[in-house]
Parts: sequence; structure tokens; C-alpha cells
Amino acid sequence: MKLAKIKIDDRVSYAQVDGDACRLIDGDILGRWKPTDETVPLAEVQLLAPVEPRQVVAIGLNYRAHAEESGMALPDHPLIFIKTPNCVIGPGEPILLPKMAPDEVDYECELVIVIGTQAKNVSVEDAPAYVLGYTCGNDVSARDCQLKQDTQWARGKCFDTFAPLGPWIETDLDADSAPIKLSVNGDVRQESNTSDLIFSCMELVSFISRCMTLYPGSVIMTGTPSGVAFMTDPPPFLREGDTATVEIEGIGSLTNPVEKEK
Amino acid sequence: MKLAKIKIDDRVSYAQVDGDACRLIDGDILGRWKPTDETVPLAEVQLLAPVEPRQVVAIGLNYRAHAEESGMALPDHPLIFIKTPNCVIGPGEPILLPKMAPDEVDYECELVIVIGTQAKNVSVEDAPAYVLGYTCGNDVSARDCQLKQDTQWARGKCFDTFAPLGPWIETDLDADSAPIKLSVNGDVRQESNTSDLIFSCMELVSFISRCMTLYPGSVIMTGTPSGVAFMTDPPPFLREGDTATVEIEGIGSLTNPVEKEK
Repeated sequence: MKLAKIKIDDRVSYAQVDGDACRLIDGDILGRWKPTDETVPLAEVQLLAPVEPRQVVAIGLNYRAHAEESGMALPDHPLIFIKTPNCVIGPGEPILLPKMAPDEVDYECELVIVIGTQAKNVSVEDAPAYVLGYTCGNDVSARDCQLKQDTQWARGKCFDTFAPLGPWIETDLDADSAPIKLSVNGDVRQESNTSDLIFSCMELVSFISRCMTLYPGSVIMTGTPSGVAFMTDPPPFLREGDTATVEIEGIGSLTNPVEKEK
Repeated sequence: MKLAKIKIDDRVSYAQVDGDACRLIDGDILGRWKPTDETVPLAEVQLLAPVEPRQVVAIGLNYRAHAEESGMALPDHPLIFIKTPNCVIGPGEPILLPKMAPDEVDYECELVIVIGTQAKNVSVEDAPAYVLGYTCGNDVSARDCQLKQDTQWARGKCFDTFAPLGPWIETDLDADSAPIKLSVNGDVRQESNTSDLIFSCMELVSFISRCMTLYPGSVIMTGTPSGVAFMTDPPPFLREGDTATVEIEGIGSLTNPVEKEK
């Protein structure tokens, strides 16, 4: 089942997406809800970021091929870092090249876990009960801030618009074997499968929940495969006018144009 | 003026604190509000964390003496890192030594800026208009996770209960010359003055707002002076039964007991 947050004129609602139609939902997908009798064509709605997360937890170095590309040893536990709610945008909204750091803005396609139920100290076995579903994400980074100017990644990862999420939440994905790719202006830059994840989605939910209480609507960005710009020579960083698309089979695709911050 | 979030029996309200009395407030201190005629004795209320921040932005290495103690060069721009909403607790609530990392939990007293108005690309000169006031904070860290096991500080900084805030928001503080200290069981471990800050509060608001939109209620933890446990030999890390108190002249004091996570 695909759960979307949609805007029709000035009205915001949740909806079930089925083919070309959106069936509006009464209630909150993070709580109690039921489908209504009202449907609208998908083509006539604006898709919003499917959640407004209180926590955006992200994982560094979680694909085997990306770890090898970086010349780094495989980690023995997940490396977490944090993005902030101001990063989150929906499908079609522009990724802004920040005035403070416009030159080395990079893309990272990621499978994103959406937490459905508050989770603390959850085992790997019990983790599925706390997951609402999955969406596509782009963990955008200003590499100059992240890797050259600061020892901590926070600033380079937390600029406004640096976490596009969408197009909707798929509740029935096989998260352990989903093809994932990213293209810029139609040119494929990253292509992999979540079967290459070092730590599986359920291992991540369990590990992070032993650190922090995860809230309904919080998201875990599970890491990115090889092919990011800063590992490419010369690095094809995002430029004004580019269009970045994350595609995960079984979910759908998330496209965002790139603009300069005004 | 001191603005508190209080609990009386099961009722939560904002209040103005004046001496031994709390005057209840009608409305939200982040929006429109006015004082009511109802007062309750301060001694009879439970003080809560004064805000529920969507962003907890923290600063590394922002006191000259602490930078010298660490043997590090003075930074040319603020080093930001992120804590998560699950870290926030109020006065009197226990700091929990996490099961995952109970052995090297450290304290850091900090002056905390509370944002009152949404801020983006704000100049240093205009920054005061976006600040509601100041509170005390303890930037608790699991040093083993932060410094030995991970290259990023996020996990060590983001355990539940790792950001005590309170006792209230003081709107009239001279933030550039406030004496600040931290004691454990009455023994003073950190003692300094915010005049030793490398980047002032207004410089921090301006810098961070050029990275991210800051929301009403978001907080900036402005860094800690010298004297933290991991820089002391042998390191007096927090243990079950300890009591940590942050005190800032002009605001008040924030005390939290230390317990093991159950």
C-alpha cells in the first residue's frame, strides 16, 4: 500500500495511492485512519514530503561497494549522524545550493525507513512492528563544509532542502532486495541494490532505538551506494538547472530540481 | 522576565516566575500570550523543560580556556553538531546512563539560546530580534561513543535524557558576561564566564541561520568551558546517585540526578 501526503488546491490530506488515483484518508497515517469514498486523480495533486519527522537519523558508509570505493574498512556498528527537520522537502521542491556553500553540493540516493510506532530498545526480531514503511530519500551534502571545513558532518548535511523525501510511503516493500539508483538529468550516477547494505533496515532500527527513542514519523536514511559526485573525477556536483531523481523499485521515484538559494 | 513551563497536578501551563510565585500565562510563549490573575507558589509546581525544540543545535569548542585545555587551535568559524529532541529533559528529571554506553557519561554546562521567531540568513546586528531568551543546559555526552567508537559525535550526544534544559527562560540576560558553573554533588567542576566565548550568542544565531532555518522554540547550546570529566585525570564521569547542577548567574540553576537506564 502506498500512503501519500497530498495537497489539492489549499487542502492537505493523506491518501492511498492506487495506480492513477488517490483515495483520500480520514485521520492520520501515524495514528488511526480510514479510507474515504473520495478519490482524485494523482495527476491533479501535489505530493508533499510524506512525513514531518522530529528525527532524521542518517547512516554513513552502509553499502559494501561504497565502503570499498572509499577505501575504508567495513564498520562493526552503524555510524549515525543527524539531519534536521529544516532539511526535509517533498517531490518537485527545489534543492537549494546554499549561499554559504554552493560549489560542492552532492547527491546520495537512500532507502528511507519511516517509523510508525514509538520505539525504544527494540530487538531486530521485533523491529518490523515499529516500521510503517519506506520512502525514497536524497541525503544532500555540501562536501566542502562536511569534509574540508568541519570535522563534524552536521553543517554540511543540515542546510535547508538537503533531505528530499517521497514520493510516498510504501508499506509492503521487501527492503532487503530493492534496486536503487540515482540519476542527474537522466544520467545514471548511482545504481545498486539494498541487498548490498552492510546493516539491514531492521538492524538499524534496533541499533538506533538502543540509543534514542524513535518517534512516529521519524525517519532513518539508511546510507548510500557508490557513485556520489565527490568520489568521481572530476566531481559532477549539482548545479543550478540540474534535476536529481532517486528511484527505488517497489516504491517509485523522487525528482527534485536544483536552484541557487536567492 | 522569567518564563517557565510548569505542571500543577496534571495541568501544564506557561508561567511568569517572580520571586517565589508563578503567574500563569494564557497562550503560548512562542506566540501570543498574556499573564492571567492566577498565581501559584513556585514551590508547588513541577518545572518542565521550557521548550520542546525541533532543532537542538550545539557548538563544539567555543570557550577559549577549553580550546587551550584541548590543545586545539581557535576555530575560525563555529563547529556545529546536532542533538535530537529525545535528549531534552527538564529540571529534576534523571540523566540516564544508557545501557549501550554507561561508563563514560560526561557533563558540559552551557548557556542555551532559545529562538523566539523563525530565523533565516539573519545578520549579527538583527539577531537579537529572533531570540526569546536564555536558559541553562547540560550537553551530556557518552565519551566512549563520541570519541573512541565513532568518528561522528552524533551517537554519543543523542542518547535519551542527554540535554537537560531549564529551569526557565530569562528574557533579559546580558549573555556576553554571565558567570557559569557546573557542580557534581556540590563539587565545582566547571567555572567560567560567557565573556570567554569565542563566538558570541548573536554571532552563533547569525551563522547557524545562514545554514538552516531556525524555528521558534529551537535552541542553540553555545559550548562548554574547561573542566569536563574526560579532560580530568582520572576522569570523574557521572555515576548513579550523582547530582549535576548547572548554574548561570542571572538565569538560575538546573539540577538533575543521575540514574542507570533500566
